[in-house]
Amino acid sequence: MTSPRRAPGGFPVVGVVGGGQLARMCVGPAVELGITLSVLTVDPGDSAALVVPSAPVGHHTDLDALRAFARECDVVTFDHEHVPAAVLTTLEDEGVVLHPRPAALRHAQDKLVMRERLSAAGLPCPPWAAVHDEAELRAFGDAHGWPVVLKTPQGGYDGKGVLVVTEVEDARGWLEHAQADGTPLLAEERVPFVRELAVLLARSPSGQAAVWPVVETVQSGSICTEVLAPAPGLDERLAERATEVALTTAAELDVTGVLAVELFERADGEVVVNELAMRPHNSGHWTMDGAVTGQFEQHLRAVLDLPLGSPRPRSRWTVMANVLGGDGEGAEELYPTYRHVMAHDPEVKVHLYGKAVRPRRKIGHVNVSGDDLEDLRERARHAADYIEGAIRE
Amino acid sequence: MTSPRRAPGGFPVVGVVGGGQLARMCVGPAVELGITLSVLTVDPGDSAALVVPSAPVGHHTDLDALRAFARECDVVTFDHEHVPAAVLTTLEDEGVVLHPRPAALRHAQDKLVMRERLSAAGLPCPPWAAVHDEAELRAFGDAHGWPVVLKTPQGGYDGKGVLVVTEVEDARGWLEHAQADGTPLLAEERVPFVRELAVLLARSPSGQAAVWPVVETVQSGSICTEVLAPAPGLDERLAERATEVALTTAAELDVTGVLAVELFERADGEVVVNELAMRPHNSGHWTMDGAVTGQFEQHLRAVLDLPLGSPRPRSRWTVMANVLGGDGEGAEELYPTYRHVMAHDPEVKVHLYGKAVRPRRKIGHVNVSGDDLEDLRERARHAADYIEGAIRE
Repeated sequence: MTSPRRAPGGFPVVGVVGGGQLARMCVGPAVELGITLSVLTVDPGDSAALVVPSAPVGHHTDLDALRAFARECDVVTFDHEHVPAAVLTTLEDEGVVLHPRPAALRHAQDKLVMRERLSAAGLPCPPWAAVHDEAELRAFGDAHGWPVVLKTPQGGYDGKGVLVVTEVEDARGWLEHAQADGTPLLAEERVPFVRELAVLLARSPSGQAAVWPVVETVQSGSICTEVLAPAPGLDERLAERATEVALTTAAELDVTGVLAVELFERADGEVVVNELAMRPHNSGHWTMDGAVTGQFEQHLRAVLDLPLGSPRPRSRWTVMANVLGGDGEGAEELYPTYRHVMAHDPEVKVHLYGKAVRPRRKIGHVNVSGDDLEDLRERARHAADYIEGAIRE
Repeated sequence: MTSPRRAPGGFPVVGVVGGGQLARMCVGPAVELGITLSVLTVDPGDSAALVVPSAPVGHHTDLDALRAFARECDVVTFDHEHVPAAVLTTLEDEGVVLHPRPAALRHAQDKLVMRERLSAAGLPCPPWAAVHDEAELRAFGDAHGWPVVLKTPQGGYDGKGVLVVTEVEDARGWLEHAQADGTPLLAEERVPFVRELAVLLARSPSGQAAVWPVVETVQSGSICTEVLAPAPGLDERLAERATEVALTTAAELDVTGVLAVELFERADGEVVVNELAMRPHNSGHWTMDGAVTGQFEQHLRAVLDLPLGSPRPRSRWTVMANVLGGDGEGAEELYPTYRHVMAHDPEVKVHLYGKAVRPRRKIGHVNVSGDDLEDLRERARHAADYIEGAIRE
């Protein structure tokens, strides 16, 4: 393994486990900050591995690969949540500086652990229960209403982690899987939500925290397609409440680095926590162009325990639209289509991940900032659609 | 030489000759645009070579090294002006796509060629002459006043390219050098200027141009220390005139990529051209944080003949302060000092070049944006001074 090369002046090396787009988007900020980035990648063709000089190949479940990687880094952080908890604990015991720490990260790795901890801390969750069998599921559904949202605490079955069940029979296969694995499933009320919100913040080992404004996230077919920053028309009291929930979560769980708290806004004007992610997150891509400090710079600063940058928005509105892989003829040829997007709208900021196109895969995003929200939404949507190949003129 | 690895989707490789900070600051934008960057570097420890996966070692005067480098790139551009004109012409004749083209670049490589061409195009220059001997220098000084500014058209003598001569005798050594080299010197009036301005623009091979607002540049000991964007209190007519001069220069010289036109603002309300640079330029570092499209992204778009991005400022004012190497105890340890800067002012954007500290060497810069110019100047100056080690608390 070639050692990552440090810049002169006492600058550290940050190791990122995982070569996806989240690691990739740390590159620009790391270069400007003078920080060396090293990426542990499964494949040398992965998104981040294409753009850093130091990208050793190794699997994130391989303790020896992680050990060797960590030896070359001052701090190790993550592109994803897939390093097994036992491996992380071993590394920490051996002295590796990990951010987030394993004890925090498990709340983003196991949804049951997360629900238990948040509920114990009095943080707002939908009604939930660990269910081991049909009887427990039926009792939950009868108490909180059908359909019920059933989740695997970790990973998933049949390629899915979430199943909406309208009657107990729908869950039979998953319950059999879970019983065989010796783990319960997580049953949650299907929250009657008005919309989905997210609060993104960064917290450093010293306990400093910086929060970006609450955003609205728009999903389509379980994939986030659009983020509106800040969330339009959000009641000020609710914005404060959402921010407080996120900050309390970060402090309670001792999160270090970026934390995304995904929330449901209910019709009764309350918020409940949906999911947590302890890393830069899709709901924060707008910050790259829309805030004084973007989430990738802030994550680096946080995991290095550097003072955090200002999360102040630089425009009244920023709209982010994800670019998903298309399936039409020529959809894999992104360069010609993004040329059109640049010509059509010189204010659109295009971010591409260097990934091969597969249908519905996240391959990039666009940001547009300004004063007229509806205009920005239309422009962001047009740009993303055009790169995807949904528009052919 | 390892080939630079392209992203899937038809994305090009841009080669940059020279591993300095200007090549380095292209990295972030290239990553986001999905463009592969390759850097021909003299030393693998050079600023840009530290942060790109493809940084073949070779000298910019070595035709074979340049040929091999260019074979792996779709377009070749430059971190500096030091590739000999004859080498560039050979490469172009062999089919290498160079931007700027050699015929344009020579105006940034040879100040006499620049003066001749600008004057022929009716663009405003100070009074100037090619002087071969003492008699010609005396005639110029007597006609336009002493002291005279004497410049070497290319390179310099005794490590300097500019000499202010108050009488003919001051120039004796340089005139002897020049006569031995068989080249004249460039004599110019010492322009009685009010301040220095710069106009930065980008122009693509298709002829599209985008201009940032006119800025004021502040020099100290022949080094640019501060840029105020836009130039405070600039008469609107003069801003238009400066912009027109820069756009005409770009079109007349068929410049491709970023062009910086450094200007003197005279007391009589006119501008005259001082210098040209055909690459991203110190006077444009403010655009990285202060404009919708920064100069490094725009340079990449221009040399690839992609549609140009909006040069619109994102704030009323942006102030850039260069960070120069200090000479005090501990001045080489930048990491601890920039930690302080981040704590002191969370809105300061710090950009460091990964270079070893040498006194007065440009090792980074800071940008601050906002509404209160004097406040921004003080904050930028404090941040730069602190990183330099000029302030020790």
